[in-house]
Amino acid sequence: MEVIQAIKERRSIRKYKPEPVSDEELNIVLEAARWAPSWANTQCWRFIVVRDKEKKVGLSQTLTPQNPSTNAVIDAPLVIVACAEKGRSGYYKGNPATDKGDWFMFDLGLAMQNLCLAAHSIGLGTVHIGAFNAQKAGEILNLPEGTVVVEMTPLGHPLGEVKTPPRKELEELVFYESYGESHKK
Amino acid sequence: MEVIQAIKERRSIRKYKPEPVSDEELNIVLEAARWAPSWANTQCWRFIVVRDKEKKVGLSQTLTPQNPSTNAVIDAPLVIVACAEKGRSGYYKGNPATDKGDWFMFDLGLAMQNLCLAAHSIGLGTVHIGAFNAQKAGEILNLPEGTVVVEMTPLGHPLGEVKTPPRKELEELVFYESYGESHKK
Repeated sequence: MEVIQAIKERRSIRKYKPEPVSDEELNIVLEAARWAPSWANTQCWRFIVVRDKEKKVGLSQTLTPQNPSTNAVIDAPLVIVACAEKGRSGYYKGNPATDKGDWFMFDLGLAMQNLCLAAHSIGLGTVHIGAFNAQKAGEILNLPEGTVVVEMTPLGHPLGEVKTPPRKELEELVFYESYGESHKK
Repeated sequence: MEVIQAIKERRSIRKYKPEPVSDEELNIVLEAARWAPSWANTQCWRFIVVRDKEKKVGLSQTLTPQNPSTNAVIDAPLVIVACAEKGRSGYYKGNPATDKGDWFMFDLGLAMQNLCLAAHSIGLGTVHIGAFNAQKAGEILNLPEGTVVVEMTPLGHPLGEVKTPPRKELEELVFYESYGESHKK
């Protein structure tokens, strides 16, 4: 599938068919994440693939109440939990290099967008889930000290159609030379 | 260009031809960023396109000393500065919904990866630049209170070839069911 098409057509999928995801399909989406760029190539991301039903239920219970993705975590054939090693991205000689501190959130965003686009390009659905208790999810997955859960996504074959949430117009999002300056000026 | 190919072939480009970027090309990459997903569709990203030579020089001077992308910011026909409105992504009813606080870094990662992949797919180069004084860059661009500079990328036609930085093997990055557990177990 063509890049621009994948970017524009990808939707957040919250309903999945029970149909399994093959090892080959899983490998494609994980490879896509692996090839993302990262701060000084630090690659602070770690991914945990969860297929175990009981564990998926446990993860679903960490989501915020009424989170619209709760059932997706249980119903999808597998869930990919994206974790980060803290203190690597955004650091120079052991100290934060910028006023943003740790850049793990940014690097995880890069990798997970690769993963979601690759999934869509081979007919699989995903949805970025961030609203959950990351501490509890980390306990379920036995994370070591210094590694944290950032987000998770179900992975599977989409069931049904989804609406396209509207986007702001480019005129609202893009300025020229200085904040607030439109192109036409 | 095919999604998986773009993901694997995209490189960080630090040398650019003087050849300009057309408005049509610029529009394609900004549209790609616009269609990224975001926390509850909050779309906290804002982009400032800088073509003015003096301003590009000013931005280049905010980079950390010896930053390998310094000349790219001056030489590329334009620079896209990615900014974020704080206090939107990751919030629920005005309070942070998770232990990560503001999710603007994650959402900006999603949008900027879309942008970089779209650029590569139409033959343009980019490089994520995060190591600079965001406060000073924000002053140059006249950012309002509550909006911060996150990163910037030059955009232009790549000059020459670049090496592929190695990536960790999937075995180092991916675990199954629990942290540290390999597939083969």
